Parts: sequence; C-alpha cells; structure tokens
Amino acid sequence: MKVFLFAASLRQGSYNKKLIRIAAEHVRGLPFCEVDLCEFNDFPMPMYDGDLESSKGIPEGVQKLAQKIQMADAIIISSPEYNGSIPGTLKNALDWVSRIKPLPVAKKQFLLIGASPGALGGIRGNIHARTPFHILGTYLYPEYFGLAKADTAFDDKEQLLDPKQDERLKGLLTEFLHYASRKETPFETLSEFVEEKIQTPKK
Amino acid sequence: MKVFLFAASLRQGSYNKKLIRIAAEHVRGLPFCEVDLCEFNDFPMPMYDGDLESSKGIPEGVQKLAQKIQMADAIIISSPEYNGSIPGTLKNALDWVSRIKPLPVAKKQFLLIGASPGALGGIRGNIHARTPFHILGTYLYPEYFGLAKADTAFDDKEQLLDPKQDERLKGLLTEFLHYASRKETPFETLSEFVEEKIQTPKK
Amino acid sequence: MKVFLFAASLRQGSYNKKLIRIAAEHVRGLPFCEVDLCEFNDFPMPMYDGDLESSKGIPEGVQKLAQKIQMADAIIISSPEYNGSIPGTLKNALDWVSRIKPLPVAKKQFLLIGASPGALGGIRGNIHARTPFHILGTYLYPEYFGLAKADTAFDDKEQLLDPKQDERLKGLLTEFLHYASRKETPFETLSEFVEEKIQTPKK
Amino acid sequence: MKVFLFAASLRQGSYNKKLIRIAAEHVRGLPFCEVDLCEFNDFPMPMYDGDLESSKGIPEGVQKLAQKIQMADAIIISSPEYNGSIPGTLKNALDWVSRIKPLPVAKKQFLLIGASPGALGGIRGNIHARTPFHILGTYLYPEYFGLAKADTAFDDKEQLLDPKQDERLKGLLTEFLHYASRKETPFETLSEFVEEKIQTPKK
Repeated sequence: MKVFLFAASLRQGSYNKKLIRIAAEHVRGLPFCEVDLCEFNDFPMPMYDGDLESSKGIPEGVQKLAQKIQMADAIIISSPEYNGSIPGTLKNALDWVSRIKPLPVAKKQFLLIGASPGALGGIRGNIHARTPFHILGTYLYPEYFGLAKADTAFDDKEQLLDPKQDERLKGLLTEFLHYASRKETPFETLSEFVEEKIQTPKK
Repeated sequence: MKVFLFAASLRQGSYNKKLIRIAAEHVRGLPFCEVDLCEFNDFPMPMYDGDLESSKGIPEGVQKLAQKIQMADAIIISSPEYNGSIPGTLKNALDWVSRIKPLPVAKKQFLLIGASPGALGGIRGNIHARTPFHILGTYLYPEYFGLAKADTAFDDKEQLLDPKQDERLKGLLTEFLHYASRKETPFETLSEFVEEKIQTPKK
Repeated sequence: MKVFLFAASLRQGSYNKKLIRIAAEHVRGLPFCEVDLCEFNDFPMPMYDGDLESSKGIPEGVQKLAQKIQMADAIIISSPEYNGSIPGTLKNALDWVSRIKPLPVAKKQFLLIGASPGALGGIRGNIHARTPFHILGTYLYPEYFGLAKADTAFDDKEQLLDPKQDERLKGLLTEFLHYASRKETPFETLSEFVEEKIQTPKK
Repeated sequence: MKVFLFAASLRQGSYNKKLIRIAAEHVRGLPFCEVDLCEFNDFPMPMYDGDLESSKGIPEGVQKLAQKIQMADAIIISSPEYNGSIPGTLKNALDWVSRIKPLPVAKKQFLLIGASPGALGGIRGNIHARTPFHILGTYLYPEYFGLAKADTAFDDKEQLLDPKQDERLKGLLTEFLHYASRKETPFETLSEFVEEKIQTPKK
C-alpha cells in the first residue's frame, strides 16, 4: 500500500514537519506500507490565477503534487492551523490540484493530523479544513490527531516526549491504514459476499 | 447488507419522507441489500436533558433508534435543512444516541441526502450537518444528493418527475453501498493482499 | 439597555447555568443595563414538527422565548457543546423561533459563551453554532468566552475560582454591550456625521 | 466613511471583479461614503512561509493591504468560491495580514459578496469563509449577496442584466453601510443614552 505524507508548512523548523516525520516512521513499521514522505516545499506553486492557468497551464509543482496523490492509496497530511482554519497555502494547493481532471484527490483515502503551539492542538483548523476535502470527494477519515503545545512536545531527537501521545498517533495511523486498505468487492459478486456477512452473527 | 433508512422530519407530507421512500425502493433493487425503512416518528424522544437521563435513563425511542443503527451496515438519512443547518430534531437524536456507549454510530457508513423547496436543495444544511457526524466517528460519504424545488419535484405517484434526478440518486446510492460493502482484510494477511495490489498495474 | 440571558441547558446543575448567572451579575453591574435572566426550562417546547405547527400553531414556550428576544437589545446565551456542535435543544428552539415572522432574532445583537468539562471549553460547539445564527441574520459578536474544565472551575459559592477568567468574562461582556449599544444614525444625517468622523484624526 | 473594496480574484476577466466594480459604483452614490476600490493584484504576495517572514519580514504587498484595511471604516470583498470554500489566495492574504499586530482586521466592519458561474452563487464558499473572519475578530455582516450564473449575468456594459439583482445588491450595501456607520457612545455617557432608548416605546 502506497502512503504519501507531507506537512502543509513551508517553514523548515515546522512542528508539523517534525510530526509528519514521526508519522512516516510509524507507517514504515507497518509491513504492508510503502512510504513516500515529501516536503510541501518540493511542490512550489504560485497563488491560483486563472490567467496564469490559461497562458502557462498547470504549474509543474502542482502537477507533481497531483501525481503523488494519484499514485498513493492513502494520503496523510499534517497541517498547521492558521486563524482557526485551513492554511491558505494548503487551500491554494487544493485549488490548483482541483483544476486537473479527473480530480486526483477524489475517492482517495485521506487522514489529517496537526501540531500547534496552542492548547487546542489545531482542532479548529482541522474542522474547517474538512469542508473542501469532502467537497472534493475524498474519503477523509473522521478521527484527528492534534498535538497541542507542540513547542515543548518534542525531545532533542525530534521524538514525542509523551509516550502516550506517540501510542495514540501510532494507533490512529494503523487504524486509518487498516480502513484504507479495505478490499473492494466486484459488484457482480457482492450478493454472495453480503449473504455470507449477514449470516455470520455479529459480536 | 443491512441498510437502515429514515427521513429526519416528523411531518407526514414531508418531502424528505417522499425522497427516502424512493431511495429505499432503489436500494431494494440491489441484490445484496436488505432494507429497513423507518419513520423518524417511530422514535419519539424528548429534548435532551441530563436530569431526565439520570432519573429515567435513555428513553425507549432513543434506544430503538440506536439499535437500528447498530444493526445496520449502512445508514441513509434524508434530512431537511432548517435555517441553513442541521435540524434541531436530528441533532437532538444524535445527542441522545451519543449517550450510549460504545457509540452506536461510530465507524458506521452513513449517507446524507435531502430535499428542500428552495433552490439550493439543502446543500448548506448538509455541510453543517457533517460536523457532528464526523466528530462522532462515522464514515460519512462525501457525496450528497440534494433535491431542489421539492414542492414540484414529485409526480402524483410520489416518484421523481425528472428521470435524470432519479438516475443520479440511484447512481449515488449504488456507489455508496458499493463503497460501504468493502471487505475488511484481517490485519495479519494485509501484507500479502497489498503486495498483490501494488503489483497490479493501475489503469 | 435590555439584556436577555439564558443557558441552553435543561439540567439543573448545568455548568452553563452557573456561568450565565455569573454573567448576569456582571451585566447587572453595568449602569446602563436591565437584566432579564431566564432558564431554558421556562420555555418548554416539543421537537419541531410541521404538522404540529399547522394544527396547533406555535407552542406557547416558543412564543414566550421569541418575545423575550424581541424585547431585548442584546441576548447572551451560554451554551454547552454536544458532539462538537450546537445542542439539538438549542437548534430546535431556533428552528421553532424562526417560524415566527418577522424573524425575532434578525438584526439582534447576540453573544455566545459556554462552559464545558473538557479541555477545549466548547470552542468547537461555538464555531458550529455560529452558522444558523448568522443565517438567521443576527449580529453575532465575534468573540467567545469558553470555560474549560468547568467541573472544577467554580467555588462553593458558584463563583469562578480563577479571578483572571472572571476578569476576562467581565471584559468581554462589557465590550460586547458597549458595541451592542452603538447608536444608529438616521440615514439623512449620516453625511454630516461621517464628515465629522473623517475629519477627526484617528489614533 | 471610508469604504475599501476589492475582489479576491487575480484573473482579469473575473466575475468578482465585475461585481465589485458595480458595488463600488453603488457605494459612490451614497453621500457619506468615500470609495477606495483596488485590485487583489495590487497586493502581490508569496504563499505564507514562516522562514520568509523571519528573514525578510512582512512582504510589501501584505503591508499595503493591511494599511488599506486599517484605514477603512468598512471593507467589502467580492470573493469567488473555490471547491465549496474560501479561495486559498484570500485565506493566504488573511494569514499574512494576521501576522501584523495589532490585528488590522479586528473590530472592522466587513461584508462579503460573491459571484459564481454555478447555480448556488458561491453560498457554500461564503459560509466557509466566515470562520476565519470571525476568529480574527471582524464584525462580519450576516447577510450575503451571491450572484449565481455569473457567466450570463452581465450585459456588455458590465452592468447586471437583472434589475432586481441590482436593487438587491444596492439594498444590501446601503443596509450594511448604515449599520457600519453606527456611532459608538463613550462609555461614561451610556447610561443616559440607554435610558432615553428604553423610554422610547418600540414599534
């Protein structure tokens, strides 16, 4: 299973960059996952401008990002919260990517996590960010991991100081990827499959 | 596959009741689905009151609704939009149901559809309703079917006048139920499954 | 200035009832304010049902609530957060009130505050609750006071233990009511007023 | 009264640029208003990057935009909807501006309008855009003017074809600016003012 991860922050010392690296390590530990960890900075792009799109087409950075998403089975983004909502930078990337048809993000499994120096762990930003993701037709996982007080949450090896937090993050990643790996049953054989499922007593 | 459906409206002539009956018919037509169509009125409940809960426990109507959800593999709700947002009645039902642990709605596949006499087809209400559903840990399908101008959308046999709308509804229901029926692979065998998936070239 | 206050909770020991009583005390201390403090329980109402409305009209509890709002210059509601969003009970009250025309809440000055036993102080619920308030045309104040860990925030005289919290609450109430009391200038004299304002150098 | 207006679109032929020019004309017609109409392109800025901010400070385009907002009594933005939500470009501008302290947008009167080629007139984008505006402490007017099917809504003189739409836009602008021009009463004299207001019987 191909898992693409990046932090929606351009700053080198970003807490979200630290968090996504830890997440990528956890995902690497799962036997069935291939990790593709990138930096948001790998996908340079201007602000969306319809005239630019008409004259020069989709910028290369956008195309590269879209391709990474397209090739992944699951995408994990660690996003900061800016002003209680989705960063303009991440939204701008979504806006550009949405100009490519068919939509590279549609029907893709997404998980959002986030780190914030504040006490709320970016929960408001996460709620706000969900709307464009669902409108773009992604399967956005309902759970969220928010790292509060991120300025004091990492040790000098850039690991999470609190082992409970680390455990919770790992648990969520595993749960998400387990969900994302569900097998689609060909439509014509669904009746048999479901019969079997209905006959099996539920716990 | 057990599919539980209801319209989040108490009014007998409700457009959402008409729409959910049409939806139930379509689901019945899928060979792998068992339909459980109820009325919101089948689950009478008071407004949420912590004192009531302490003295008398969870009301019977709430328990019945929770059980229906618990037993279903997929839940489809047709909800009106009240004041650009989730009806208080539906939110009240969610609030009550959320008092039962483990959460009956968590990790359940949900689809929201809706009908409205207005021109927007209840799209604002749908966006607003999504938040408590995702916070409660449901797998809420990203797509939405909104029937605009619902007061003139049905014929005298309570079918949709516009065959394109009907086709679009049917398509969404099928797509949703196909998604909801994906098989969970036991964790220990995931590596094999995924290997196979990665080796298969993508179209 | 008439200020109407209530907590959107029915439970007698509700943290929000405690908080709104403290808020009412602060408002009473402002020389220009008349306080009307009620309990949500004073406005009993069923869940919204269009058939009920057709057969029996707007319930008495709703009419009473609407009248209180209508007569107030400013309305302050302390609301719990249920499942990361507006309580169904409060939304149901808004839905009922919105059936009265002209809308009793439109162009009214509102402030939302809230108390929650959790660490987030009901901030998610506040964000979610804002949508129907703005769609109903209220002037909803942008700031929010959220009391986190409300189960340990009050002393045995039902005052806030933390004087900084109390100061912050009082500051917000004063600021809100100052804003809400701004005088409307008759349209025809606006040009003079504004001229004067433009000529006055800004600090 | 100084009114600052711009369309949150970079494209030259943008429907929102057309709409904001019409809005500016209406505002010019109000005797008490000074119009400052700009283009979003007048405020070039990179995507927000904390490292850039540390090394080079706030970009000039951001400073200029912040100053325009700071000097205005009311701000009107015509914003497109991108993917059912706030454009990344507009959010990015807010994110940059929010780095300037004190917040230039706080306690400022804002109105959002919008144009969209779709049938919904950008209403979803407007709802989504409201959250960062209220979190940043703006007084965001509750009403919205959304121009649907914007690709066929203008005549060849770039006026609105439908006089009712034009009337509705003008009405909203006037109402908003009347509200925004309310006089703040010095705190110490509030009691007298309010007394007078309370004694005046309401209609």
